[in-house]
Amino acid sequence: MGDTNRTWLLAERPDGRPDEGCFEFVERDVPEPGRDEVLVRTLYMSVDPYMRGRMRDAESYAEPWEVGDPMQAGVVGEVVESNHPRWTEGDVVNGELQWADYAVAGGHELTPVDPDVAPVSTALGVLGMPGMTAYFGLLDVGEPKPGDTVVVSGAAGAVGSVVGQVAKEAGCRVVGVAGAEEKIDWLTDELGFDAGINYQEGDVHAELRAACPDGVDVYFDNVGGPVTDAVFRELNVRSRVVVCGQIALYNATDVPTGPRKLAQLIQKRAKVEGVLVSDYADRYGEAAERLGRWVADGTVQYRETVTEGLENAPDAFLGLFDGVNIGKQVVHVADRE
Amino acid sequence: MGDTNRTWLLAERPDGRPDEGCFEFVERDVPEPGRDEVLVRTLYMSVDPYMRGRMRDAESYAEPWEVGDPMQAGVVGEVVESNHPRWTEGDVVNGELQWADYAVAGGHELTPVDPDVAPVSTALGVLGMPGMTAYFGLLDVGEPKPGDTVVVSGAAGAVGSVVGQVAKEAGCRVVGVAGAEEKIDWLTDELGFDAGINYQEGDVHAELRAACPDGVDVYFDNVGGPVTDAVFRELNVRSRVVVCGQIALYNATDVPTGPRKLAQLIQKRAKVEGVLVSDYADRYGEAAERLGRWVADGTVQYRETVTEGLENAPDAFLGLFDGVNIGKQVVHVADRE
Repeated sequence: MGDTNRTWLLAERPDGRPDEGCFEFVERDVPEPGRDEVLVRTLYMSVDPYMRGRMRDAESYAEPWEVGDPMQAGVVGEVVESNHPRWTEGDVVNGELQWADYAVAGGHELTPVDPDVAPVSTALGVLGMPGMTAYFGLLDVGEPKPGDTVVVSGAAGAVGSVVGQVAKEAGCRVVGVAGAEEKIDWLTDELGFDAGINYQEGDVHAELRAACPDGVDVYFDNVGGPVTDAVFRELNVRSRVVVCGQIALYNATDVPTGPRKLAQLIQKRAKVEGVLVSDYADRYGEAAERLGRWVADGTVQYRETVTEGLENAPDAFLGLFDGVNIGKQVVHVADRE
Repeated sequence: MGDTNRTWLLAERPDGRPDEGCFEFVERDVPEPGRDEVLVRTLYMSVDPYMRGRMRDAESYAEPWEVGDPMQAGVVGEVVESNHPRWTEGDVVNGELQWADYAVAGGHELTPVDPDVAPVSTALGVLGMPGMTAYFGLLDVGEPKPGDTVVVSGAAGAVGSVVGQVAKEAGCRVVGVAGAEEKIDWLTDELGFDAGINYQEGDVHAELRAACPDGVDVYFDNVGGPVTDAVFRELNVRSRVVVCGQIALYNATDVPTGPRKLAQLIQKRAKVEGVLVSDYADRYGEAAERLGRWVADGTVQYRETVTEGLENAPDAFLGLFDGVNIGKQVVHVADRE
């Protein structure tokens, strides 16, 4: 490896909305894999809303990142050098690595990606954590029944777009909430959503009532805030709310406030439950098999928004908070050799 | 029946906290039971927080009461005249009747009360709807496991006091939140609660942390508002929140606001679910049998706050919002003949 290893560090913790100053781009030596370790060259890296939480110095389901350390990300990469019996040079793998050209990982921390099944970047999206989050969150927590009305916020995102399509497959009426006409068109014209609501325009609650004449049985929430307030008003008796993300609130500097909702839950005997994909680790195989089949036969379609170049990774991440992406946002770092 | 039938009407809908002007006390003729109907003389009537909701002109799980109509209540009474084969004069019955000396009900709308099992007033409390709400809400929605920490708000009320004792029976550590030292003493000295927190004094959140060193696995919420905000901060991963009442908010004139909580539910994969006892109607027998046994053997103790005289029923009701009652608040209207 004569190469250098460009790496993004967490330069400082954001106060409110992150900006370029939170990131520092450095050049480091390409690391050497130790015993049972593998050197991986990044092909694609993922940027995800949950990363905002890890930039914060607060307890959550994952440890906060340390200032001065490399940023972490889901990465699809190519094995360059292997000291682990499972992997050989040229294998394509998926792992929790870094915002960097190269990273070293324990061989057991990586999973294989088959480049013949689908473009390898899908291991970060429809066939990866976002797709599985949609699968388990909708089916296990949301418990959709045929004929149910399912509302999804962040509907044109990596998770939401899969939720809606799986809900259609489950026999539901599906209404997507997103923030741009282009997104709504994609949902309704190509993905088969029954209706789409652009929350940037008009009266979300009125549109929701019109789109859900029989109320809402399942709400899959990726955004939180006022969109969620509107959907809660339309929940049916015994409805289920799957709380997956709250991106509208992640950059708040004060504790966000809003209408108290618990009294509604008594009236409706509704269930509100958070979902985290890692709780379903022992069932990833099931989700991968189903999603793989649905992608192969066109039941589940996907889009990716690809940012070119590791140097633009912070832009790609920050764009999530503006809803720039349609489908999964990834960063293309290199091609396979 | 030479008697007159004193009856409380809903005089006007409250705006905010109800006051005496919401009620009108009138004298009416004692009604005549029709075919298959029964005339019941009220012995005890119940006042409950849910009644505040029915004074409002808004959709809920029950129809709003109409202005000018008699107020309704759970009543334990004595059959005075029966045109229904199931009932004879002198039978003690329980039904959804009126704030009145007498009321007529369809024979099938009444259930029997056995005066030899326990004082008949308990059919409105520990052996009635409040006790069953506690039973199903805690066990079915809260799903307590031995060793769990269970927090109950409104802990000295009709529902909360039963929740805590059943949770102890289920092998849990139980912490009650209430609003007076006398209540805390009752919970910890007599009912076996492990700790009590007086939310009227001190720092509820700090006391809660101290009382729940292993966090909170089940939160049974009868009150809502700031107490609930404090408990949410201590929820454990996979914890369950049973939303049973929100009395702290029922008299709000604007939509109450507070900290948004859904992001916490993702971190904790917690479940929040509303409970309404009528959803469990087909299992009332199970709850009645268990609660009856527990009351008989002293496992579940109860207290009642008895207001004397139908003329004082509004006072008894309004006192609920000041937390005047310990245990079940009832109104004693008459004795058995």
